[in-house]
Amino acid sequence: MLPVPELIAAARRQKPVDLLVRNVRLVNVLSGEIHPAHIAVRDGVVIGFEEYAAATVVDAGGRHCVPGLIDGHIHIESTLLSPARFAEVAARHGTAAVICDPHEIANVMGAAGIEYMLAASAGLPLTVFVMMPSCVPATPMETSGAVLTATDVRDFLDRYPERILGLAEMMNYPGVLGGDPAVLAKLAAAHGRVIDGHAPLLRGPDLNAYIIAGPASDHETTTVAEAREKLRKGMHLFIREGSQEQNLHELVPALNDCNSHNASFVCDDRLVNDLVGHGHLDAVLRKAMAAGLPPVRAVQMATINTARYFRLHRLTPLAPGWRADFVLLDDLPSFAIADCYLNGRRVAQSSFAAAAPFSANTMRVAGLEPAALRVPAAPGRLRTIGIIAGQIVTDHLLLEPKIAHGMAVADPERDLAKLAVFERHQASGRVGLGFVTGLGLRRGALAGTVAHDSHNLIVGGMSDADMIVAAREVVRIGGGLAVADDGVVLASLPLPIAGLMSDAPAAEVQNGLQAINDALGRLGHALANPFAALSFLALPVIPALKLTDRGLIDVARFEIVPLWDAG
Amino acid sequence: MLPVPELIAAARRQKPVDLLVRNVRLVNVLSGEIHPAHIAVRDGVVIGFEEYAAATVVDAGGRHCVPGLIDGHIHIESTLLSPARFAEVAARHGTAAVICDPHEIANVMGAAGIEYMLAASAGLPLTVFVMMPSCVPATPMETSGAVLTATDVRDFLDRYPERILGLAEMMNYPGVLGGDPAVLAKLAAAHGRVIDGHAPLLRGPDLNAYIIAGPASDHETTTVAEAREKLRKGMHLFIREGSQEQNLHELVPALNDCNSHNASFVCDDRLVNDLVGHGHLDAVLRKAMAAGLPPVRAVQMATINTARYFRLHRLTPLAPGWRADFVLLDDLPSFAIADCYLNGRRVAQSSFAAAAPFSANTMRVAGLEPAALRVPAAPGRLRTIGIIAGQIVTDHLLLEPKIAHGMAVADPERDLAKLAVFERHQASGRVGLGFVTGLGLRRGALAGTVAHDSHNLIVGGMSDADMIVAAREVVRIGGGLAVADDGVVLASLPLPIAGLMSDAPAAEVQNGLQAINDALGRLGHALANPFAALSFLALPVIPALKLTDRGLIDVARFEIVPLWDAG
Repeated sequence: MLPVPELIAAARRQKPVDLLVRNVRLVNVLSGEIHPAHIAVRDGVVIGFEEYAAATVVDAGGRHCVPGLIDGHIHIESTLLSPARFAEVAARHGTAAVICDPHEIANVMGAAGIEYMLAASAGLPLTVFVMMPSCVPATPMETSGAVLTATDVRDFLDRYPERILGLAEMMNYPGVLGGDPAVLAKLAAAHGRVIDGHAPLLRGPDLNAYIIAGPASDHETTTVAEAREKLRKGMHLFIREGSQEQNLHELVPALNDCNSHNASFVCDDRLVNDLVGHGHLDAVLRKAMAAGLPPVRAVQMATINTARYFRLHRLTPLAPGWRADFVLLDDLPSFAIADCYLNGRRVAQSSFAAAAPFSANTMRVAGLEPAALRVPAAPGRLRTIGIIAGQIVTDHLLLEPKIAHGMAVADPERDLAKLAVFERHQASGRVGLGFVTGLGLRRGALAGTVAHDSHNLIVGGMSDADMIVAAREVVRIGGGLAVADDGVVLASLPLPIAGLMSDAPAAEVQNGLQAINDALGRLGHALANPFAALSFLALPVIPALKLTDRGLIDVARFEIVPLWDAG
Repeated sequence: MLPVPELIAAARRQKPVDLLVRNVRLVNVLSGEIHPAHIAVRDGVVIGFEEYAAATVVDAGGRHCVPGLIDGHIHIESTLLSPARFAEVAARHGTAAVICDPHEIANVMGAAGIEYMLAASAGLPLTVFVMMPSCVPATPMETSGAVLTATDVRDFLDRYPERILGLAEMMNYPGVLGGDPAVLAKLAAAHGRVIDGHAPLLRGPDLNAYIIAGPASDHETTTVAEAREKLRKGMHLFIREGSQEQNLHELVPALNDCNSHNASFVCDDRLVNDLVGHGHLDAVLRKAMAAGLPPVRAVQMATINTARYFRLHRLTPLAPGWRADFVLLDDLPSFAIADCYLNGRRVAQSSFAAAAPFSANTMRVAGLEPAALRVPAAPGRLRTIGIIAGQIVTDHLLLEPKIAHGMAVADPERDLAKLAVFERHQASGRVGLGFVTGLGLRRGALAGTVAHDSHNLIVGGMSDADMIVAAREVVRIGGGLAVADDGVVLASLPLPIAGLMSDAPAAEVQNGLQAINDALGRLGHALANPFAALSFLALPVIPALKLTDRGLIDVARFEIVPLWDAG
């Protein structure tokens, strides 16, 4: 930024400004009005709303102008795009800043993963803030690539006081309520900074205890009653609109004239095809206004409310002295974007070159042989994961096995596929085996390294041989997704950045994902995002039955259970 | 505060709480509702709104409960009370915290004065935050007791990171706009902290420049148009309701559903008789609700809005984990207070003992002799300060002198009194002489050390002899106010703390002030607060004509002018 005396001189018209966008209708999130204005910019900073002599003058023709949008909680990894590639797309959809939780890459690579996300997002036109992951690994019942302690939390917060804003979603609420010293030590390490919560269905005295321990927001709220209690008790309400979970319609009725400034829109997880096809927060605002939220209030929930919660003083709301991030709209209710400016420059003319290349190979897998998948027959029924379409919770089923040659095998007739999770961080050769219904395959297999939260190599299929072919392809491409049938790879999508992200342009990744989905379609799948469904089957904090490299997890009992139920 | 595990256990009902105030109607400034609740408290911290087993249970009988109030801008010195004595009164009126600008004592004693305010307010049940004075002295045309530089600003901010929140009202807006390096250095020293503004009538490009330089609030706004522009440009609007200036009725129409969270109520200056007689922010809220502001929104403007602006995370709004500061009301619209709690204790049972006694004598005056007041006749007319009742701006009059024995003298027939400002910090013997109309005296004199902003010894009267008697009495009592007539002191009020404040109980100070006003009444004055009027006659940043120890100041020209206008 220019020295203050230069900016003062520019504001007083003693020096010209760089840019004047004349004749906008400003959606002013500070004064709560829509009013005529010009936007004068010098050195990336808003100078004023008056007429100024400018090097470049743009006539906005009375278009609405909104501040650049902020997503208060997103896992960039879930887009499948690197930070720069994500930013390139999001910026075109009006996003000026995101607060990301690099929880996924941290589970693969620990501190090195967080350092990569910081380096790879530094200096982009879209500002990327980071929250320090709080739960790596999510549970002790799986093998992650790293363990982060309270010491790591303190270290990162100290070293990046500007870019790391606090502690990311504290998912381990049982640990908080139980007073687990390691958990409380992480909260203490972030004392005085922003601490995000994650407290699905937590109510009453337990919610009091959780809030007192530090977390100040929640993005897992799904009902009005829950939203109302959390607002009353001082939590900032993140209303989530992700690819998997959408809570806007349910939660908007909890808002009123005097509390909406304590609520924000966030996306949490947003897959590349959603991002490119429907947009980012622009899509959320379109939906919010269609749901009856007044435009100024809706835009506040995607800008100033989030900035305030994160204590981002002087970022994003459009006013003198603040960063010149703004969006011109052809139409406000449909949020039809005409043009975006970040730091006073047109996004279309800005460079989103990746600041830091990724060079590691995070695929350390041993024992990828068909023999590793064999399940010898045993007495009893098979504990089976039952996928519920559109949800990340699963059923915990007990099914009769199909036995062939003394082995339990997949059964396409009943949509019963075999499922395997190969440990991929330490080349231990450890594999967890199970069965799953609801993938919808009639043949072949799919494999991927996006497998919350430890991101081991998860493989599902109707044929052991194809499962190994798909898994080996994923290893060959350095991590990613693959589909195989009849001994041949049908499609694969490299995600070489920690097995989670690609540095290819978004359109290319989207096409790759489409090719995967098309190949799966030919094998018979019935789900909208089969890989997204697969990616949650290894997440042992979501009920009811999950599979990790250590075996089947009964989430209700929070313990490893045998595959065979002799019951 | 108790360790977090203890509070978690209390919240989960595994340990009893200290206090349960049952059956309130909570004015919830977070959720924007009024809802039934109980208030459970452990170790001064709100635990929850549910039923809890408690050592002490109070039934509130359905009374409304509001969070403790915060005054975002007050000069405690202007009450005439020491911090502890002020806190004692304010707490009974529902105040939980104030952000004070110790600008007055800093002008008398510099850093030592700020240290005194910090020490004298430490550990009181009412929380006192401090803003670092930005303009000591206010101008170079007067003699203050100290000079504070950018180095002092940085030093105090570094040494008191918790108690000093930022830089107090930057009154020197001409210095900001002119790019004065010393002024910009103070703003730079407070970079990243809260910087309060003071920008009466500043608009357009100049307002842009001022905001860009750092100040983020304004309490000098007097019209809706000015308020709207400042809100649009991102300033936090402090709506002032002081003893001298009252802007609520004028400014409330600038508020709407989507911007009121960017506005707060402040008192700025509130004299002891107002404070004891009418109250503090409780009086402001009564007025606000009578003016039609919805109760929740009004209370937000005296609590959470102010806490947010000052980044006081976890202070004052009533929710789990926050300080248990709250007020029970017999009636919400009239804000009739039934009981106040600070830190979970009844204010009536809390101790407000002064933490730090004051021992210095700040009266260093020389030359208090009648001869010092002589004004030899000269050609032309007298430049005369014209008091305008109820305002701190004055007229700049040119009047024919009354001459006696070759000297210009006071003239009771025309309400023309003599005015003198004796330098009182360095015993220099320097005195500025002038004349004033509008004091309303028929005889006698009044003297005081409350004389903005340098707080020299100001004396006005119809008799030189009585002026010296009153001035000497003020010196004798170590600073304060005095009235004399016919060679005798009629009344005096000691303000031995820097000549500004008393450590006596508020009622005693109020009675002392009443005795002063009664004595003045017998001498013929017509003003409501004659000493308040006198105290602004030495303030050379307010138009049009003022008097300092260096002489008459033409504020429009910002220079010293001769007493005689040869015209």
